[in-house]
Amino acid sequence: MPDNTKQELAIIKIGGNIVDNPDALNSFLLDFQKMKGLKVLVHGGGVLASKMAETLGVKTQKIDGRRITDAETLKIVTMVYAGYINKNIVATLQKNGCNAIGLSGADANSIPSNRRSPEPIDFGFVGDPVSENINVPFIAQLLKSDLTPVFCAITHDTNGSLLNTNADTVAYSLATALSNVFQTTLFYCFEKEGVLKDINDPESLLTTINKKDYDTLKENKIITDGMIPKLDNSFKAIENGVSKVIILHAKNLLNGKGTILTADS
Amino acid sequence: MPDNTKQELAIIKIGGNIVDNPDALNSFLLDFQKMKGLKVLVHGGGVLASKMAETLGVKTQKIDGRRITDAETLKIVTMVYAGYINKNIVATLQKNGCNAIGLSGADANSIPSNRRSPEPIDFGFVGDPVSENINVPFIAQLLKSDLTPVFCAITHDTNGSLLNTNADTVAYSLATALSNVFQTTLFYCFEKEGVLKDINDPESLLTTINKKDYDTLKENKIITDGMIPKLDNSFKAIENGVSKVIILHAKNLLNGKGTILTADS
Repeated sequence: MPDNTKQELAIIKIGGNIVDNPDALNSFLLDFQKMKGLKVLVHGGGVLASKMAETLGVKTQKIDGRRITDAETLKIVTMVYAGYINKNIVATLQKNGCNAIGLSGADANSIPSNRRSPEPIDFGFVGDPVSENINVPFIAQLLKSDLTPVFCAITHDTNGSLLNTNADTVAYSLATALSNVFQTTLFYCFEKEGVLKDINDPESLLTTINKKDYDTLKENKIITDGMIPKLDNSFKAIENGVSKVIILHAKNLLNGKGTILTADS
Repeated sequence: MPDNTKQELAIIKIGGNIVDNPDALNSFLLDFQKMKGLKVLVHGGGVLASKMAETLGVKTQKIDGRRITDAETLKIVTMVYAGYINKNIVATLQKNGCNAIGLSGADANSIPSNRRSPEPIDFGFVGDPVSENINVPFIAQLLKSDLTPVFCAITHDTNGSLLNTNADTVAYSLATALSNVFQTTLFYCFEKEGVLKDINDPESLLTTINKKDYDTLKENKIITDGMIPKLDNSFKAIENGVSKVIILHAKNLLNGKGTILTADS
């Protein structure tokens, strides 16, 4: 049930495939700038980080599709996400008249994380945000000063170490924590129209999906792979106070056409 | 004449040689964290940027000791200064209990710059901050919220382009602009004891120097090379409202031993 006493806030996450395509990124940023109301951007950047690792001769190791972050890889993702991508997005938004401020989770201790346990798989310098410790007053103060926070997916352990963090999870954690103060909508933008019954057919878009539908589709292996963590995060967000989650193509940000997730009831 | 109605603020600049030495940097950051009162850190990073350029096979071109910033070099300095160095400094300060926030001049439009004219020498993507356009209310708000801004030497032209900027000049520009609101002291920390009459003899330290002394020492070629822009910036800072400028070894930050610059009168 939306809480009408709270101000609306949009948390928008864009993935590495958009960030890696200058035309798609610029077009997205123009749309983002046009969105009315309070907003937060969260960006990935895995594609560019992998290219930089290759140029530097650092091997990208993955287990089950997830990057292993050794010390060299942490350095690369910090440079690429928090430096190159984050500051270029901020400069572009500033040009468009959007007063953006780029942040990592270390800045102002905005997103403290736990380093993931090395058991059963040691992913290295990888963190999972602690939603209840997110610095909500700081982020709320920025928003109330008409600033637009732009988060990269680097957090910290509060003990001196930066941590590579999944950008979907950063967006989920921010949306959940900020829903204590704002009425939040979480937008997961990617390169498909939304949740598709047939991954090769954009016409098979599900315009809404609830948890029960999702469980059935997962069981029947209609939803697989990369969509599963995104949808798991999305339903967890709704359970934890986020008003609405929309999974959509980045080009549809302004018309909101995509898959809207709903609670069961 | 110090204005006692204004709150004191220290602007501390550290150079690339300290940033490049993990032990010196950690020791400096512990001292920095112990400093009482409001403070802002500005860091360079040229040594690490040159190493990264070499690893990436990008040639560092310099004219009169100043780096030419082509598009590839801009990408590298953005990654190294705004990403790797800035976020690691922030994470270390956070560990020490100092609520740091890392920023470039693009963030919150904090330091708008003019791209330097390509005549007589085209330095590429290099900017000179516009002191009167620095976002003083934003920086003051951070300081009043007990946050410690940590600036890297990347600014922007407000038209979508990031700009490589001399870190001494960033520190000078911030100190000058913030002196409208705070009683500012500017600390230039580097790897010498201060201004030396004989560069090879730390005992030849000048504990104070005024503009007239400086002009004479420059004329007699006792002060040369890299010290000249630092001292030019320092005297300009005093002319433009900064209360005090101290040039000192990074290890002396807490005892303040170094060269204090004074106005002529």
